[in-house]
Amino acid sequence: MIVEASVVRFDSIALDSGAALAPVDVAYETYGQLNAARNNAILVLHAFSGDAHAAGISPETGKPGWWDNMIGPGKAFDTNKYFVISSNVLGGCRGTTGPASINPATGCPYGMSFPGITISDMVRLEKMLIDKLGIPRLLSVTGGSMGGMQALEWAVAYPDRVVSAIPIATTTRHSAQQIAFNEVGRQAIMADPDWNGGDYYGKQLPGRGLAVARMVGHITYMSDDSMREKFGRRLRGKENFGFDFDVDFEVESYLRYRGSQFVGRFDANSYLYITKAMDYFDLTNGQGSLAAALAPAQARFLVISFSSDWLYPSYQSQETVRALRARNCDVAYAELPSNYGHDSFLVDVAEQTELIRGFLANTLERAS
Amino acid sequence: MIVEASVVRFDSIALDSGAALAPVDVAYETYGQLNAARNNAILVLHAFSGDAHAAGISPETGKPGWWDNMIGPGKAFDTNKYFVISSNVLGGCRGTTGPASINPATGCPYGMSFPGITISDMVRLEKMLIDKLGIPRLLSVTGGSMGGMQALEWAVAYPDRVVSAIPIATTTRHSAQQIAFNEVGRQAIMADPDWNGGDYYGKQLPGRGLAVARMVGHITYMSDDSMREKFGRRLRGKENFGFDFDVDFEVESYLRYRGSQFVGRFDANSYLYITKAMDYFDLTNGQGSLAAALAPAQARFLVISFSSDWLYPSYQSQETVRALRARNCDVAYAELPSNYGHDSFLVDVAEQTELIRGFLANTLERAS
Repeated sequence: MIVEASVVRFDSIALDSGAALAPVDVAYETYGQLNAARNNAILVLHAFSGDAHAAGISPETGKPGWWDNMIGPGKAFDTNKYFVISSNVLGGCRGTTGPASINPATGCPYGMSFPGITISDMVRLEKMLIDKLGIPRLLSVTGGSMGGMQALEWAVAYPDRVVSAIPIATTTRHSAQQIAFNEVGRQAIMADPDWNGGDYYGKQLPGRGLAVARMVGHITYMSDDSMREKFGRRLRGKENFGFDFDVDFEVESYLRYRGSQFVGRFDANSYLYITKAMDYFDLTNGQGSLAAALAPAQARFLVISFSSDWLYPSYQSQETVRALRARNCDVAYAELPSNYGHDSFLVDVAEQTELIRGFLANTLERAS
Repeated sequence: MIVEASVVRFDSIALDSGAALAPVDVAYETYGQLNAARNNAILVLHAFSGDAHAAGISPETGKPGWWDNMIGPGKAFDTNKYFVISSNVLGGCRGTTGPASINPATGCPYGMSFPGITISDMVRLEKMLIDKLGIPRLLSVTGGSMGGMQALEWAVAYPDRVVSAIPIATTTRHSAQQIAFNEVGRQAIMADPDWNGGDYYGKQLPGRGLAVARMVGHITYMSDDSMREKFGRRLRGKENFGFDFDVDFEVESYLRYRGSQFVGRFDANSYLYITKAMDYFDLTNGQGSLAAALAPAQARFLVISFSSDWLYPSYQSQETVRALRARNCDVAYAELPSNYGHDSFLVDVAEQTELIRGFLANTLERAS
């Protein structure tokens, strides 16, 4: 499968906060071919720490994409049939404009002078990309976690541009607990003296704080069961407790490794801005019912949640489904059994693949 | 109710690690009166961040104890009937010897030269206190969370000294997820440059790291539901999002407040040592069945868990109960409905009080 990686620059974008960014870059990849009718395009939206590299082998890093088991020839998002587009979100650090980008007004990275952003800002930029690519309507918008928030926002903000939406393991608004976990990550970063008010580019990175933030994240992405299966109480490279504060347990080693690995690939300020965008997201804008907020949507919906996902519990997806049904929307819902917690949408793909394949085929047939 | 607060010094204690501490102090409080038969004593064991001040008003701080709603005249642990003892754990920072104590060999605080400790070390020291107080058998040992671990350890290590045990919201061994949350707290502390290898006494405290650790803790002590009820998505002192990184949501404000408040009352090195002791705790010592590990126990048991406690989920208490039943132990079990998560044992006390009152009365009757 050919991976086409590009960056497109737009003159400016107006943001929900009232600020604007000019210019603004969007990094994106595409897989498969846009058909002559231009009706086979699917926009895949990544989760918090993802990037545009969703599938295939990156020519740059040699690594498979974050949803490579779902996107490709014969896979759920079958690139023999569909034209799949994946872009890095606004505020990110993998090619799309974010806090690490150079502010043309100063010649220095934005850092904390980067304007606050929202999920709807991200979606507005994605819409600019889709316009630029000359795609009149997306056959589907999809994504897990924060990607699912964007899919929901797309369906409401640009209803005439979206034939279907597949929000996975997501919610229409963060609960207090979800905000709390994000806030702990932000506080861990801002507590690191190397964070330095966000001004650390070209200097020592706030790696200790960012690593702690990531460790918290990883616990929430797994389930109690999956951690038991993967680590249990197994010791790491020793037969007895060390009685020091070096690694004793496998799970400690895993968290430390994941934390330090993250520092090499993610920008701490992007962590701050993107988690805030997630916390701000509320499809109801804090008023009225969810059903009222979903009223503009015209898309068909496939909503998926996972039984062991306690970070984005099924009750949140079910709330979305009830609200869509209250609007007489065409909505299918499945809670898939899985032990992998929130990570299920990334790793446990057999049933997910079956569901999505059938839903997309049916959607394409109706749309043609 | 009169609060008697004391500190007793012992020459030394031998630890599981092979090290010894000499001397060792134990801070404790007592409530009520030991009867002539010396058979009405109840040892109450605190959770991770607790202290000896379990009940009544502290003459020192003017504050009520951490289980004041459970201990006192007419309460679950009725001080008109029982003699209640509460001590600060080994490794703590509220009067009992811990890392902040002066190492007599150097004249300086132990810091990280403090030896590694275990739950069984804590219980060994508590046993020395009970011997010193001249109490032949405890009518009951009880506590929630880490206090419950100690209660279980008491029942197995000193079976002839324990008539009954009431382990609440606890486990016989930490799961990978429980270890993981503790490890995140430790890493947050050790990531703070002010931690300085544990050598910060009389200098700048590692307050930022300790605050982050405590924030993670607080999320795990509450439930998704209780956080929704308490905070929801309410904003703090503003009508719109700030688009800065100041507090937006009530829940952020709460976590920041709790984090900073904790720094003033708890020692970061105690955090490290005590969480490790919890992670090390395994009643089976990593081998054999739980039923075999519980074989020495002669006590009657009342095991309590709470429906919304996801940090110490009911399945862990139920595992303990099954193992006790497999040994033909006298065991009663209740999973109490409560929305408060792990904090339930501290705050939701109506049903807990009924259960414990009846169990203790019955135990005293049989013991007399």
